[in-house]
Amino acid sequence: MNAPLPELAPGFAHTAAQRAVPPDLLARLQQLFGSRCSTATSVREQHGRDESSYPLTPPEVVVFCESTDDVAQVVALAAAHAVPVIPFGIGSSLEGHLLAVQGGISVDVSRMDKIVQVNAEDLTVTVQAGVTREQLNREVRDLGLFFPIDPGANATIGGMSATRASGTNAVRYGTMRENVLALQVVTASGEMVRTGTRAKKSSAGYDLTRLFVGSEGTLGVMTEITLKLYPLPEAVSAAICHFPSVDAAVQATIQIIQMGVPIARCELLDENTVRAVNKHDRLTLREQPMLLMEFHGSEASVKEQAQTVQELARDFGGEDFQFASTPEERTKLWTARHHAYFAAVQSRPGCRCLSTDTCVPISKLAEIITVCKAEADAAGMPYFLVGHVGDGNFHFGYLLDPDSAEERATAERLSHQMVQRGLALQGTCTGEHGVGLHKMGYLVEEAGEGAVALMRSIKRALDPLNIMNPGKIFSI
Amino acid sequence: MNAPLPELAPGFAHTAAQRAVPPDLLARLQQLFGSRCSTATSVREQHGRDESSYPLTPPEVVVFCESTDDVAQVVALAAAHAVPVIPFGIGSSLEGHLLAVQGGISVDVSRMDKIVQVNAEDLTVTVQAGVTREQLNREVRDLGLFFPIDPGANATIGGMSATRASGTNAVRYGTMRENVLALQVVTASGEMVRTGTRAKKSSAGYDLTRLFVGSEGTLGVMTEITLKLYPLPEAVSAAICHFPSVDAAVQATIQIIQMGVPIARCELLDENTVRAVNKHDRLTLREQPMLLMEFHGSEASVKEQAQTVQELARDFGGEDFQFASTPEERTKLWTARHHAYFAAVQSRPGCRCLSTDTCVPISKLAEIITVCKAEADAAGMPYFLVGHVGDGNFHFGYLLDPDSAEERATAERLSHQMVQRGLALQGTCTGEHGVGLHKMGYLVEEAGEGAVALMRSIKRALDPLNIMNPGKIFSI
Repeated sequence: MNAPLPELAPGFAHTAAQRAVPPDLLARLQQLFGSRCSTATSVREQHGRDESSYPLTPPEVVVFCESTDDVAQVVALAAAHAVPVIPFGIGSSLEGHLLAVQGGISVDVSRMDKIVQVNAEDLTVTVQAGVTREQLNREVRDLGLFFPIDPGANATIGGMSATRASGTNAVRYGTMRENVLALQVVTASGEMVRTGTRAKKSSAGYDLTRLFVGSEGTLGVMTEITLKLYPLPEAVSAAICHFPSVDAAVQATIQIIQMGVPIARCELLDENTVRAVNKHDRLTLREQPMLLMEFHGSEASVKEQAQTVQELARDFGGEDFQFASTPEERTKLWTARHHAYFAAVQSRPGCRCLSTDTCVPISKLAEIITVCKAEADAAGMPYFLVGHVGDGNFHFGYLLDPDSAEERATAERLSHQMVQRGLALQGTCTGEHGVGLHKMGYLVEEAGEGAVALMRSIKRALDPLNIMNPGKIFSI
Repeated sequence: MNAPLPELAPGFAHTAAQRAVPPDLLARLQQLFGSRCSTATSVREQHGRDESSYPLTPPEVVVFCESTDDVAQVVALAAAHAVPVIPFGIGSSLEGHLLAVQGGISVDVSRMDKIVQVNAEDLTVTVQAGVTREQLNREVRDLGLFFPIDPGANATIGGMSATRASGTNAVRYGTMRENVLALQVVTASGEMVRTGTRAKKSSAGYDLTRLFVGSEGTLGVMTEITLKLYPLPEAVSAAICHFPSVDAAVQATIQIIQMGVPIARCELLDENTVRAVNKHDRLTLREQPMLLMEFHGSEASVKEQAQTVQELARDFGGEDFQFASTPEERTKLWTARHHAYFAAVQSRPGCRCLSTDTCVPISKLAEIITVCKAEADAAGMPYFLVGHVGDGNFHFGYLLDPDSAEERATAERLSHQMVQRGLALQGTCTGEHGVGLHKMGYLVEEAGEGAVALMRSIKRALDPLNIMNPGKIFSI
């Protein structure tokens, strides 16, 4: 909690400008929201951190909203006083999105957890922003439906939309970009607008839905989200397979994708991750790189996919296939993936994890992973590696001693080198976590000054007072 | 060609303001581009129309660009003189996008027809904006790849991106929204920017790519487009099936989609269309509503899909299934769909076609189509109906006598009623053709004043002089 903010690229210094919540605004919020408006230290501190390794940076006040009208009221008041507003779901951001770097009001939407409307026959659902993905899936399972986007954390749909999240199922079902149909948004002036419709496609004007998706709370507060749902597949089969090297596992993945196998999940765990999970969960997996896969479809299609993948994997030394078809067996097989993060972090007691998020064209994946592993090994930095390799997206988790400036510097250097390589390979600095505070400098490198200038113009047009989650994505 | 512009919603009158190309600008363009800069009447007239039924509205000058630098030069000069710029591909717009309603320069990109880079192993390709979809598919076929988006017309990739086009394959492969990865764009100031990367997904800042896709030339000129490609399926099978009513055909489609069958194409033709095609192509199809379907996948998967669909269709009275697996047989089976438009238009010599483009949640599809057919029949208006019914998108083509004000009024009234119904059913006024001139009023009804105000703010921020295809989508 006492680590300094990492350095950003030149010209992107953190602004120190705090914009205090004036007493009359605070009084008005207290009057309107009573006990749902809190300045208690514990509440503020809970809203001043996320899963990143940034120091605690609490807001001045937290308002627990229960409706779109609540949000609109808070934002309108904040606009009248030019005070920052930071939308808050469940706090699972990895990039510092939730930190009140300019002070202001944290708008907690976690109590906005209603399923507004399920349209099973259209495969759509509208939820309030505070609904979590696990809650959503519980609620639609009995209808034979599911929402596939799974970033690991039990994040809110609002948070997942704000960061354009994806995760393990994206290789088949896409990301939040592809799966948000429509939004209700409170804009920076406190007005409620709707974007999109429940139609599956539309050419009606600018794609405001996709402008808000991934805007990290900097353009408005999403209050309702309409999503695509999918029929639960007739059959699901999971498989694991071990490989002699990370390179071999990635080469097999590349073949699977290029062959057009409609694989639903294709996750890589390196030998460090497997070792950590074996210890954490008393498993006896071979401590070698492995792929964890899932196939969705009809019984016949799932069998055929598994067969094809098995043949491809063998060409790259893939061995020791294990399959699981029942939900219980699948859950067991997936334990290694679901516990990877915590198992790895616990493998070095007291450490903090700096997670990378590079995503490259799939043909470049083996190259970049191999070099980055060698660099981390050479630096003596403890790490684990997991990857949504079917999408070319991978995460190194550097397990650093938070009291060691040297280790932090090493981790930042390794992360920096990885991003540089990813950009040189026509990839992106963030596949799914967002820019937040950590990647502001990289965004300029990736997109160029011209494109970031366009983003700034849009931000200024939609949020002229710069009150919506200021200091994130880019400086103004 | 002499039909008046249709009335728009109140407050959305066409601006009469013409912004003349000043002599020194024209001289400079002629000096820079020589014979590639034309003011010849025939060239201007060719660039002053599209496939809509609007009257000829030519630009003052046409510049044939051959590179991004050419485009940047023209736009920078236009910006310096605050003169409109209208990007032009192949002229297949259906909504008046290409008409020079405020005068200005038509920037013809049809000579920008290079495939810039194919990355077969990543399933991506970068093309210049003037490449047509048929050209692209010819060039990647030998690599075992294809680009699935097929709006019917052999449109340019630039035009398809600008209108967020889709068409027959969208039910499985998505629209241009899902299939454009990255762009090179000349902005309204004449600067070149890049958006997106070749990575399959990204959370790096605002989604500028999807902001430009569907912006109908009003925010900049797309000069290069990076697209997803797909492996040619191992097996393809086409099928037709006849139904006792349009309602039955649509109900069968709804079941197919809700069951999660990964159907690649699912097109409806009503009895009027079948009748017209029979006459046009001397076919002997049963003059009943029919579904035309295509299945992509492995041999086994395609067989299984066809089997499932056949069973579902029979439940709704689907009869007379015909299947085709070879390319020649498939092409023959698809003749009815490919020739539908021209066959229908020729069924009433001298007529013009007013095409609608409503898209609704699929559960509402049978309801709206049934009512709209009854209304057209009651009005005595000749029409045909085709639909990308798997997506809930359908097109009525009203075949009107261009010299009859009454028929035009009737067609506009029927179209208007259809849009109202579509919006009430949580659908969109345009599934794939764009807003252009024709649906400006409807956009406000669909999106609301607040959302359109956001669009206007973005437009003003990115194009402060309102030179990029002015007068389209919304008034400024």
